[in-house]
Amino acid sequence: MISTILVPTDGSRAAQKAAMYAVDIAKQLKALVIVLSVIDKRSFTGQTVPSTETARHVIEPIEDYLKEAAEGYVGEIKKLCDKNGVQSKTVITAGHPVKDIVKEASRAKANMIIMGSHGKSALAAAVLGSVTYGVIHKETKIPVLVVRR
Amino acid sequence: MISTILVPTDGSRAAQKAAMYAVDIAKQLKALVIVLSVIDKRSFTGQTVPSTETARHVIEPIEDYLKEAAEGYVGEIKKLCDKNGVQSKTVITAGHPVKDIVKEASRAKANMIIMGSHGKSALAAAVLGSVTYGVIHKETKIPVLVVRR
Repeated sequence: MISTILVPTDGSRAAQKAAMYAVDIAKQLKALVIVLSVIDKRSFTGQTVPSTETARHVIEPIEDYLKEAAEGYVGEIKKLCDKNGVQSKTVITAGHPVKDIVKEASRAKANMIIMGSHGKSALAAAVLGSVTYGVIHKETKIPVLVVRR
Repeated sequence: MISTILVPTDGSRAAQKAAMYAVDIAKQLKALVIVLSVIDKRSFTGQTVPSTETARHVIEPIEDYLKEAAEGYVGEIKKLCDKNGVQSKTVITAGHPVKDIVKEASRAKANMIIMGSHGKSALAAAVLGSVTYGVIHKETKIPVLVVRR
């Protein structure tokens, strides 16, 4: 019985397509959709500024900006769920995308993960983006539905 | 609306696990399951025996053997469908697994392909077996649900 579907999104085209598919299938299954956006901490802590020189007033606005963007992505999918009478929850975390997706899937007892084949940072040539690849690789039990962009 | 699910099988453990998951979800979705087994032609035409020397009486029994095995795999899944009140059809082809899976998905107008992460011939270390990888890569429209072994 599929009762909970995790839909990670980074706002990419494939993620949007995956979300639309997820809402359709959740409606048919009467399942709960958990929309997750992970703010990739690596994207703003990668710069190796010596800690004493870290310009917090520069670092923080980047995180704020990414958080706002994430709220936008998950909000759009939540709206789509509402419009289709699909129950949904939104979750935003800051961390490592693969680890956070797997953690949230397990925490929420998701029976399925629906995600795009390629996220924003993926090379077009790769069959799977690194996050989708990582989730399939790491993830041991929950099936992953891959939606091509 | 998910109405048709393609379930390719090569009798591997991951394929069996994928099939069980597929029957569950098809039951919930009231979808038709198409069980497909592709006899991999490469596995018995790879030997480059000069055509005049081809021992047809040797080649044919291999194909017969593979066909019998395929009938066994699809038959088991069909039984599982019957037991769960899920409508199903079985298809056996001889050709290239990736091409035949994509062709059958398109022919049957499948809305979803559910398959194991690794088939029989896959290297354990790879994240995806070559057939699953190939289907995700080739396949342009139909989402692929990957079930880990």
